[in-house]
Amino acid sequence: MSAAPDVGTPSNLQDALDYCRQLVTPALRDAVHRLPAEIGEIAEFSFGWRDVDGTPREGGGKGLRLALAVLSAQIVGASPQSAVAGAVAVELIHAFSLVHDDIMDGDEQRRHRDAVWKAYGIGPAVLVGDGLLALALDSLARSAGAETRDAAMAAVSNALIELVNGQAQDLSFETRPWTGPRAVTVEEYSDMAGAKTGALLGCAAGLGALLGGAPTEVVVALDEMGRHLGLAFQAVDDLLGIWGDPAVTGKPVFNDLRQRKKTLPVISVLTGSSAASPRLLTLLDPDGRTPRSEQDLRAAAHLIDDAGGRDFTEASAERHVGRAREIISAVAVNHAAAFTLTELTAFAANRSH
Amino acid sequence: MSAAPDVGTPSNLQDALDYCRQLVTPALRDAVHRLPAEIGEIAEFSFGWRDVDGTPREGGGKGLRLALAVLSAQIVGASPQSAVAGAVAVELIHAFSLVHDDIMDGDEQRRHRDAVWKAYGIGPAVLVGDGLLALALDSLARSAGAETRDAAMAAVSNALIELVNGQAQDLSFETRPWTGPRAVTVEEYSDMAGAKTGALLGCAAGLGALLGGAPTEVVVALDEMGRHLGLAFQAVDDLLGIWGDPAVTGKPVFNDLRQRKKTLPVISVLTGSSAASPRLLTLLDPDGRTPRSEQDLRAAAHLIDDAGGRDFTEASAERHVGRAREIISAVAVNHAAAFTLTELTAFAANRSH
Repeated sequence: MSAAPDVGTPSNLQDALDYCRQLVTPALRDAVHRLPAEIGEIAEFSFGWRDVDGTPREGGGKGLRLALAVLSAQIVGASPQSAVAGAVAVELIHAFSLVHDDIMDGDEQRRHRDAVWKAYGIGPAVLVGDGLLALALDSLARSAGAETRDAAMAAVSNALIELVNGQAQDLSFETRPWTGPRAVTVEEYSDMAGAKTGALLGCAAGLGALLGGAPTEVVVALDEMGRHLGLAFQAVDDLLGIWGDPAVTGKPVFNDLRQRKKTLPVISVLTGSSAASPRLLTLLDPDGRTPRSEQDLRAAAHLIDDAGGRDFTEASAERHVGRAREIISAVAVNHAAAFTLTELTAFAANRSH
Repeated sequence: MSAAPDVGTPSNLQDALDYCRQLVTPALRDAVHRLPAEIGEIAEFSFGWRDVDGTPREGGGKGLRLALAVLSAQIVGASPQSAVAGAVAVELIHAFSLVHDDIMDGDEQRRHRDAVWKAYGIGPAVLVGDGLLALALDSLARSAGAETRDAAMAAVSNALIELVNGQAQDLSFETRPWTGPRAVTVEEYSDMAGAKTGALLGCAAGLGALLGGAPTEVVVALDEMGRHLGLAFQAVDDLLGIWGDPAVTGKPVFNDLRQRKKTLPVISVLTGSSAASPRLLTLLDPDGRTPRSEQDLRAAAHLIDDAGGRDFTEASAERHVGRAREIISAVAVNHAAAFTLTELTAFAANRSH
């Protein structure tokens, strides 16, 4: 997968993503304008709509969640417009989680720019995250469609709980050992990724179907589809975190290895019976403190690849993409939208950033 | 008011507060137990249920919001049980806001103990705040009573937006001048306090009435009642922040003056035409940096008192308590509960901590 040349975004998909973004952005901007001026500007910065000095910019981010919501409404036969309130809510929740996660993880960069806390300070970043979350709920609470609002609020509340659980698990992994009985297992890693990344993508797709009037079993199936897409997406993130091109990802080379992050390629090798484990462990983490040379990190990346960690992770991404596609086929009413959504799953698995 | 001897809590009110706390705490604890272990312990610390080392404690906090919700259900003729889901939600939101506000304000102490961020670090404090908020929404979304859930979620979402607005306004006051055209006015201060403190107390009372099955106009009236109580509560907080007994408030003497906080007693003097203003300004903030001696702070407190800032703030608290009582009289069906709620307003205005 990531070994193949980057296929880019097919023009049909790119058109669809552009369409979804253009459909949802006005409502998203209207929502953000309801924040008080002091934090509204910071919220606009977090969406990539402005620089710190106020210069307007094109928005950043892939718009994956809003597209998932809109396409999920379409594949169940509803209008794309029916999903807008849900798309706005999930994009706001995603923005909230990025702002707060960057504080917790101490990540200084996001999409080639300063993280919000780095640009504006921790206090304002905490508050703007809270504001984005409050706005997500308030937007949904104000949305038309009283008959689906209750279920929509429940879906969003549940995704939030999962997001927090996933982040708590991820943070707890930092203090766990690489090997031995307390090492993080592949199963625990999948639980974490399912909660941290899968839940909100599942919520986006499920909300699209729900607001599009689909029956409960279709809503549940598309939620599941989004979760598989999320797990595939996270697996590819893990591949890019080791083997991604820094010029494209915007992160330093071997970034996840440098930061001692417990990601799927590493965990799958270290919790397996690979003969490479002891040597890998020495390269990754001689004593939990010493900075490693780029040469050591490069050697570690090679070892992980040789020991099958890259193949394992690529296979995991492919398996989840396959499951997502099966669900799309099973529930699709609008086959043009289903084709686009299938292309989106391929893109998520083949992306280079 | 604060000049009068502290009246303590009347036994009828104390019994009622104890009853409300005992009614709501099991459901609140059940909710908190649904957080993942990593942050569940921190959440329990934030409620004062345990120390950092795990020693169990009696809960801290006044339980004002949960009591407001329960008593508001009772005064409209409903059972206290009907308000429990709402009481749990508002207590969780209150806990969320305290944890995050202490980060933003850099406050190291809360209820005579370390603030959460001080005890556990900023990252975990951000996450536990997010978790408490997610839990509030999820608890309400899971609650029985589908016919009121939609309105309850809307009320909570709206209160959250106001909380964030109020905190943003409060933070923006820090960088505003004490005097001149850009000085914070009494009206701006009231807007901020209404959003930061009033909205959640209004939400607590309104939710109690809503879940108790009251008609919309009664829900709106009790929301308004809670807002007045919140404004009275904030005014008394401002009095205690200057003239409170450190042994009782748990904060240093003249704390708000020391921290250069723009509170109602000071704002009312400096934006009025008091001859004391220039001298007060010099004592409060010679250049925005220099630490002031305790003697200077004491002199400033005297000046504010002499210039009428204390009377103005006491009168404001009394006016809001009066409005709250009028509303209670107007809507009460259960007069025993109305009597207790009236005692609660008196307690809020006469408290010493």
